[in-house]
Order: sequence, then structure tokens, then C-alpha cells
Amino acid sequence: MVGGLPCAILPDITGGGQFPTLQAETGIMTTNTPPSIHSLDTPALLVDITKVQRNATTMIQRCQQMGVSLRPHMKTHKTIEAGEIMTNGTKRHIVVSTLAEAEFYANHGFDDVLFAQPLTQDKVQRCAQLVAQLEEFHVMIDSSSGLDAINSRPLSRKQWSVFLKVDCGYGRAGVSHDSADGVDLVKSLVSTPGVKFAGLYAHCGDSYNSDSPEDVKAVGHRTAQNILAFAERLKQEGVESPTVSIGSTPTCSQPADTMGQLTEIHPGNYIFYDVQQSLLGSCKLEDIAGRVMTRVIGHYPQNGHLLVDCGWTALSLHSLGQLPTGFGIIDGHPELKLSSMTQEVGKVHAVEGTLDFDKYPIGTVLKILPYHACATACMHPKYYVHSGEDIVAVWKPCRGW
Amino acid sequence: MVGGLPCAILPDITGGGQFPTLQAETGIMTTNTPPSIHSLDTPALLVDITKVQRNATTMIQRCQQMGVSLRPHMKTHKTIEAGEIMTNGTKRHIVVSTLAEAEFYANHGFDDVLFAQPLTQDKVQRCAQLVAQLEEFHVMIDSSSGLDAINSRPLSRKQWSVFLKVDCGYGRAGVSHDSADGVDLVKSLVSTPGVKFAGLYAHCGDSYNSDSPEDVKAVGHRTAQNILAFAERLKQEGVESPTVSIGSTPTCSQPADTMGQLTEIHPGNYIFYDVQQSLLGSCKLEDIAGRVMTRVIGHYPQNGHLLVDCGWTALSLHSLGQLPTGFGIIDGHPELKLSSMTQEVGKVHAVEGTLDFDKYPIGTVLKILPYHACATACMHPKYYVHSGEDIVAVWKPCRGW
Repeated sequence: MVGGLPCAILPDITGGGQFPTLQAETGIMTTNTPPSIHSLDTPALLVDITKVQRNATTMIQRCQQMGVSLRPHMKTHKTIEAGEIMTNGTKRHIVVSTLAEAEFYANHGFDDVLFAQPLTQDKVQRCAQLVAQLEEFHVMIDSSSGLDAINSRPLSRKQWSVFLKVDCGYGRAGVSHDSADGVDLVKSLVSTPGVKFAGLYAHCGDSYNSDSPEDVKAVGHRTAQNILAFAERLKQEGVESPTVSIGSTPTCSQPADTMGQLTEIHPGNYIFYDVQQSLLGSCKLEDIAGRVMTRVIGHYPQNGHLLVDCGWTALSLHSLGQLPTGFGIIDGHPELKLSSMTQEVGKVHAVEGTLDFDKYPIGTVLKILPYHACATACMHPKYYVHSGEDIVAVWKPCRGW
Repeated sequence: MVGGLPCAILPDITGGGQFPTLQAETGIMTTNTPPSIHSLDTPALLVDITKVQRNATTMIQRCQQMGVSLRPHMKTHKTIEAGEIMTNGTKRHIVVSTLAEAEFYANHGFDDVLFAQPLTQDKVQRCAQLVAQLEEFHVMIDSSSGLDAINSRPLSRKQWSVFLKVDCGYGRAGVSHDSADGVDLVKSLVSTPGVKFAGLYAHCGDSYNSDSPEDVKAVGHRTAQNILAFAERLKQEGVESPTVSIGSTPTCSQPADTMGQLTEIHPGNYIFYDVQQSLLGSCKLEDIAGRVMTRVIGHYPQNGHLLVDCGWTALSLHSLGQLPTGFGIIDGHPELKLSSMTQEVGKVHAVEGTLDFDKYPIGTVLKILPYHACATACMHPKYYVHSGEDIVAVWKPCRGW
């Protein structure tokens, strides 16, 4: 137990044969000596379990202090194990970004799952199956077309539980918070037989455009204010919103006071954090739980670069190389810049002056802090979970749609 | 049989339950009516089998006309089925970008496999296993460190087959084509017991920086000239290069005459092609075999955009949105621009003027031509292979390292 959380180190270790001490078939460790991260083939995604648990605990405690529920988003990691940690072991009350995730969690004992994308006709059948399978499965709509889709598939023994997606200024999806359309849609919704109004949901993705922690707080404040005003307008029409939920890791890591008036927040990225979040003030660099481990595989002094076996298949191109250190930050090496990547390799230059190749012999292990953890995690079929230098678990994420 | 190629429509159809007419366990189609691409959940990667076969045939015939061998690169698709098509059914003579790929192909009956990354100590053991497993497995080095790694693991019954990676001007990896180091390294290599010199290998990735088909040809000419001159210097030292190989899809799609003097070329992307290749003159838009199918899931006239269920998890961020049509080209809709993407959704605006939402009702299917097929394919755990509108196979690529 760490920080009051259930033990996340599950016996789900399948090393694919890399570790002589692991049995791939049974997934059981056969000696008391865990393998070291240094035994891993590279590139590999390392996940520091201590930081994952600390990030989860901090968010859980923050929500307790704010008096709001936490409905963690699974999209960053898409693993059962991190889902357990984020839900404090309850395996209840989560958000997912794809139906494949919804089914993955449903099939692994999770419940109270919200599929946070405007529902369309083509996805109704799979959603109906999830409603039948779970105690609580929620869908989301932001137009009458979504309500039509639901109405096309009446449920025999249950109601559809439906959130309304509200656009509080981000401008991606949702009914405008200040329009009449949204109120009308909720009124249609509550008067539809077989349909239950679950609440209001907004994503404040505009927080990612912030220039400062103050800006982030302002986005959180404005989003909360707008969705609360919308809920108040509904109330005046006689409709209570059981849930009023907003989320984004920047706003939930640095919450505005107004957010305490919500019933729920739904951040996701905070479980890993990343360089982008550190620049937004959501975390410190030392809170970043995921790193791509790579090795130096070549020296090219004539070109001033060394080569590592980490390309965009292992890190993604997110950040577009615009950091002073390139596409990420090489942990403990502020003098190095990951200046470009192709499919399976990356070029590393000196940030300034000439690279001292003797400091990084071929075979040297480097660990890259990702700019965008969601994008980096997405590239990996396995996460190597470590405590210090010991690998304590291998997590396998859900992929596809 | 299409164009002299073996039938690529293998009975490897596992639809994960989406198609009532498929049996997921056996992978056998149970009716004579194949499912339509319109029955697919979105996003989904569609692969047009007719175009794949045509692209493969064209490259095979081009190599025959040039009098060079084709060693196709598997990195773009990483599937058994496309590997069979690219090798004209022989399952021999391929290049791979990762050891996971090498093992995947080796375990599925392929042979004569080249792992095209500078070899380092940490990867020697897995390579030794591949040497034992296959008739021909080749590694690549570009430094004495690579030779040291090989020497650290003498083979009992076979020789190491080793290519030298040569930098002919691209500037990523390899010994410089005009340096003495490369010649010295080959001389060390040929005098090492248990090691066989397999040949010279160069990647002309600088072709991707070309401004015109003439530029592409110039890169192919210069690369061929440089590697041939290097081979000639080796010959003067008494060392024959069994293979002299260069590759990149742009240079191999528009080959310079000089390339006819090589023994081998090793392009990869041409099996799918993409928007980037069309801009480089490698192909026409109608040759692009892979498309991401997506559906319209929301209308937001107040913001001038519609939403599709294709985010960067399905298309990648490659192209950086710099095309006039954004991150890709929406097939048959030059008036639409995929202007931005987040994890699971994309915003589509009008290229010019106001979007006519009535033309794209919610549920409308759109198909996006990717800017970079390698990056897009990499995001998909399954490829839906179609002939016209019929799904004829589901291919499952290799992932990880």
C-alpha cells in the first residue's frame, strides 16, 4: 500500500521472453530477484510506479478537499492497472475515449463508465451492449441527432443514461453553454421515455493554450462558471443536473475556487504527466512518471550527432521538436537535444557547442521525458513498470477502436 | 492471381466480432457475401488490395527492367500478407526496421532477412538466435563498435553475415562514403573469423527533402554514384561487395539510370504510397492504397467546423497540418480541410468560405488519404483490406520492438 492506495503491482508480468526470471506463459515471476530496467530491450516505455501512485493520491486528495467527485479519464494510459490506481481501487466512475476502451474496462470488472464522445448511430449497438453488461454505462450527446440515435435503439430492461456535452469556450464539441439549443435538447431528453439525464460535461481543452498558471486557473474558472450557469438555467426550467463535470489536467491540477461548486472533475493525463504539463504548471519535471528508455547506437562526429534507437514510433512527433531540447527532455542531460527522429531512430545533438562523444559511449542508456504522455503511451504495446531500477510489472494497454 | 502475383487474399480474416458473417475463432468466412467497408466501426484503416498489388507489381517489374534485385522494406506495413505480395510470393529477401519485425517474419516462414539498424551489443543475442533460426539473417554495422559486438558472440555452426551501412550524403547513419574509415572497417570485417561481408547498404532519405522529381533523381544518382565508388575502392583493396544496395521510395519510384549499376534496391513505402510521395512525384493520388475511414459525428456551425471520429491516434500528426487540406486529403472532397486533431477527433473546416453542413450529415463516411503512410499504419492494430467495397481480409501488423 502506498499513500492509501491499493497495491497496484499485479501479478500480470509477461515479459515476452526477455527476462530469464519471468515465465511468459504464466506471467509469474519465478525468483525473488526482479529484473532490472537495464535488462530491457530498447526502446521501452518505463512507468515509475511510485510517481504514478503519488500523482493519483494527490488528485484524489485534492478532490476530497474540493468536495468534488473524481471521474478519472483512462485515455492517457488505457490500462487496467492504472485505472485501479486512479479509482483508488474501486474500479468505478471512469471516462473513456473509445468504445474499445469501454469494452476493455467493462470486461475487467470496471463499472460506471462514461463514453465521452458525441454518440452517433453507428455506435449505438455497441453502447446498448455495454448498458446491458454494466450497472452504469453513460453516453453523451450534443445534438438532436444524438437523441435520435438513442431513440432508434430502445432498451428492454434499462434506461439510457445520457450526459449533455457542453461547449464552455473550448470550441471543439458540445452545445454552446449560452445558447437556447442546449436547454431545449435537455428538455427533449428528459421527456423521452427510456432515457435518463445524467448531467453536464465539458472539456476545457483551451487550458492547453495558456501562457501561465494564472491563465490555466482563468480557464478553469470560466469553464466552471459557464457550465454552472447552464445548470442554473436548466434548474429554472425545472431540470436538475445530477452531475456537473469539467476536466482537463491543467485546470484540475491548478483548480480555480469556482471548481469547488462542481459535482465532479474528470482529468486523465495527470497519472503520467509530461513536459507539456510541466510547462503549464500542472506538475514539476520530477512528477513525470513515464519515460522512453533508449540506447546510443551510433556516433557520427562528422555530423555532430549521436544516434539513439528511439524514433517517432516510440515517442511520437508531438512537440514538433520545438522544445529547447528538441522533441523531449533527456532525463539528467540538459546538454542534449533530441533534434530529429525518423521511424526507429533519433538524432541527438549538443544543445550548445560540440558534443563530447566520450561521455555517451555506444550502448549508453538515455531516458526521454515525453512532451505529450498520451501520444507517447499510445505508441507502446507494453509499459514496463518499475520501482527504482526493478521492473515490478508489465502493463498491456487497450488499442484500437 | 493479379498481375502475376500470388493471391494475397489469405484466409486470415478475424473481425473481432464486428461481422456477423465472420467467425473470429477460425478466421473463415462463413457465407459467400463479404462484409462491406460500410459495416466497419470508425476510425478504421482501409487498404485497397488492388492498389497494393499494382504498386507491388510495378516495383517488381521496374527492378526486372533495371536488372537489380528488389529487397522490399517491411517497415511501412509490418504484415505477413503485404510481405508476401512485395516478395512476389517468395517470402525471401526482405529488410526490417526492428528485431520484433525480424522475429515476426522469421516465425512466419520468411527468410533472407536484413535488420537495417547499426548493431549494438544489447541486440546481439536476439540476432544470434535469428541467425540460428534462418538460412540467411543479415546484420548491419557502421563502426568498429558494431564489429566488437559481433565478436563478443561467436557462432558455433554459422557465420555472421554483415552489411556495412554507408552514408552517401543523407547524414543520419553509416560510414562516410568518401572516408578511409569505411574501407578499413570492411578490411577488418573480412579478416574476422566467423564473419562474412554481405555488402554495402545506404538509405537515401535525403530524397524526402527534394523539391521536384528532378531533385529526387539527382539524389538517387548521387547516392548510387557514391556507393558504387566506395565499392570500387574496396575492389582495389581486393574486396568484392556481393551486394550494393540503396533505397528510399522516392528514388526507387523515379530511378536514376545510375541505379541500374547497383545489385539491389530496398524501398518500402511504395506498397501503400501516401500524399507525401505524391508530392515528391513517386505516385499519383490514385495509387495511394491506405485510407483512414471516419464518420462525421458532430456539426458546429457556430464555429464553422464539423467533427470526425479520427484523431491523431488514427492518422498521426505527421504533415503537421501544412497541406492546403490540413493533415491529409479527404478523398473526393477537395473542398474540406482536416484542420486539427486531438486524441480521438478531428475538426474539418471548409478550405474556402463557409462549410455547407447539409452536404455532410452526421454519420457521413469520409476517407482520409494519409500524408505519411508509415506513421498512419503504425497507429492501427488491424488493417481492413478491401476490394471495391468488400472487405476481403483483415491484416494484423507486428508492433513493439
